[in-house]
Amino acid sequence: MPGIKDVARRAGVGVATVSRVINNSGYVSEETKDKIEKAMKELDYMPNELARNLFRNKSGIIAVLVPALEHPFFSEFVNQVESALHEKGYKTMVCSTAKNSEYETEYLQMLKKCVVDGIITGVHSLNVDEYLINDMPIVALDRYIDDRIPIVSVDHRHGGIMAAREFIRCGCKKVVQLQGAKKVQSPALERHEYFQRELKKAGIQVYTYEMEWNKFDTEYFAQVVKEVYDMYPDADGMFGTDLVAMLFEKYALSKGRKIPEDLKIIAYDGTYVTDMAHPSLTKIKQPIERLAKEATRIITRAIDGNAATEKNIYLETVLIRGDSTRV
Amino acid sequence: MPGIKDVARRAGVGVATVSRVINNSGYVSEETKDKIEKAMKELDYMPNELARNLFRNKSGIIAVLVPALEHPFFSEFVNQVESALHEKGYKTMVCSTAKNSEYETEYLQMLKKCVVDGIITGVHSLNVDEYLINDMPIVALDRYIDDRIPIVSVDHRHGGIMAAREFIRCGCKKVVQLQGAKKVQSPALERHEYFQRELKKAGIQVYTYEMEWNKFDTEYFAQVVKEVYDMYPDADGMFGTDLVAMLFEKYALSKGRKIPEDLKIIAYDGTYVTDMAHPSLTKIKQPIERLAKEATRIITRAIDGNAATEKNIYLETVLIRGDSTRV
Repeated sequence: MPGIKDVARRAGVGVATVSRVINNSGYVSEETKDKIEKAMKELDYMPNELARNLFRNKSGIIAVLVPALEHPFFSEFVNQVESALHEKGYKTMVCSTAKNSEYETEYLQMLKKCVVDGIITGVHSLNVDEYLINDMPIVALDRYIDDRIPIVSVDHRHGGIMAAREFIRCGCKKVVQLQGAKKVQSPALERHEYFQRELKKAGIQVYTYEMEWNKFDTEYFAQVVKEVYDMYPDADGMFGTDLVAMLFEKYALSKGRKIPEDLKIIAYDGTYVTDMAHPSLTKIKQPIERLAKEATRIITRAIDGNAATEKNIYLETVLIRGDSTRV
Repeated sequence: MPGIKDVARRAGVGVATVSRVINNSGYVSEETKDKIEKAMKELDYMPNELARNLFRNKSGIIAVLVPALEHPFFSEFVNQVESALHEKGYKTMVCSTAKNSEYETEYLQMLKKCVVDGIITGVHSLNVDEYLINDMPIVALDRYIDDRIPIVSVDHRHGGIMAAREFIRCGCKKVVQLQGAKKVQSPALERHEYFQRELKKAGIQVYTYEMEWNKFDTEYFAQVVKEVYDMYPDADGMFGTDLVAMLFEKYALSKGRKIPEDLKIIAYDGTYVTDMAHPSLTKIKQPIERLAKEATRIITRAIDGNAATEKNIYLETVLIRGDSTRV
């Protein structure tokens, strides 16, 4: 393949001049620029992007770390982030971190080594200290790391309260909720706290089941659902994330329960998978596209050196009624 | 941050010697190496990976292109590929291409520019000519591009025949199948051809509905399902990919049909979303983890210069019986 020297020779200029044109740096006359561009075209010259990146000390790549890429919430988020980053001229690198806790550390090293320009992290790992690198562009999805690292999240407290009020409206008396591991520092957990508080105020029994850390496979969810259902077979309300809610509905139906007559269900997240549920599920929907756009806006601004002014973002969820809370 | 010059100064050696140690190239005595490594540690020196990549003319990054990242088949595939590539020391870059046909071309340019070392492409675009770049590491998932580009796929023909025989076993008389756009050159389409042939041989009516190109959202799928169901309300068998099969089951149930009594359903792909279906779906399951491992094996070998010996890979699917074809 032709190199920069071949272009310089054909255009009759020096290598440094060609480099200035490629990197769009320093003055080059229009006439010379035309000659160089003509030479590039004739030679079918393709600049080595690694060399350009080294010159700019930027890779143009942002890493998106999530616990499990195939989980519907994270796959929708990654899909939306990839679109939003693409529009801003960045490429998206991904990593599923639940399978190996070392991976997160590795990506932080890559940020230091300039392999990636920034990290959007939605992982649930516990080693917060490693993130405390000064002046590095990092944005957290749904996770408290440090005051210096901005969060993009939803108002989970309000989401929890909305779900609670929906069960109250339906006249439920005994509600179970399945939540993530409490040791993860995430605003997402607050919805369960506020959910429980709101129901207790109304004199309704609430039972909370805490799931294991960093487990996202449907096999585990199905096992937990069976365990919780069999523990509280007379519960008349259930609250959990999409896959858990769908599996709970499925298990209850297989036990001959009628939905919504015997049991009301509310799914949290409201990703596309809930569209497949029958009877249709009432859901608290997260605005995933907007979460992705906000994460993208903050990370690209941080890369451009405007990190200090960024604040935490808490977007609103919406309740979408399905048949599972029909009265 | 300290640079290579600072390391050289502290170790009392030349910059070129430090560079040889960083890039593990050329002879450096053990004693000098120790001095340099000590200096790196003391200075907390982090080599600029971009500079190293330029030296090796490798980025260590492989791009995985799929039509829609949030689609369960592709999100499972990307998740498995990312794991497999990680084990081989590669990072994964992703792109959803259905939203913009320019993106595919852009990634092929990036391959030429050394931003990525190889491409695993599962996209459904139509511009095959652009892929005909000599000696570039490219692997196709489920897609015919050119004799020089190896395919990783399953034996879709056998998958289609297995599904047909299951409907025959159930005594179905009128079966509908929903398939992807015929203009895409994909082995996946062959299952529908073989499915139809097998059923016709047994004297069973088959109606085939061709879906639009590159549409993967549940809204579109739901609309198509309604259209097909209303067109053939007396069909007693239905064959389609996971989301389409689940939505068909849901729509049929909402119309008061009993499954499997009135209608048998078989889902193709067998991703995790089918675990949520009630009644449970019979499925033809693709070995996604193995597809990912084969794609990874071929692409990494091609990058190492062993492309020529690679052959197309066709793995076996399995039929997993659920309640939707119970007799």
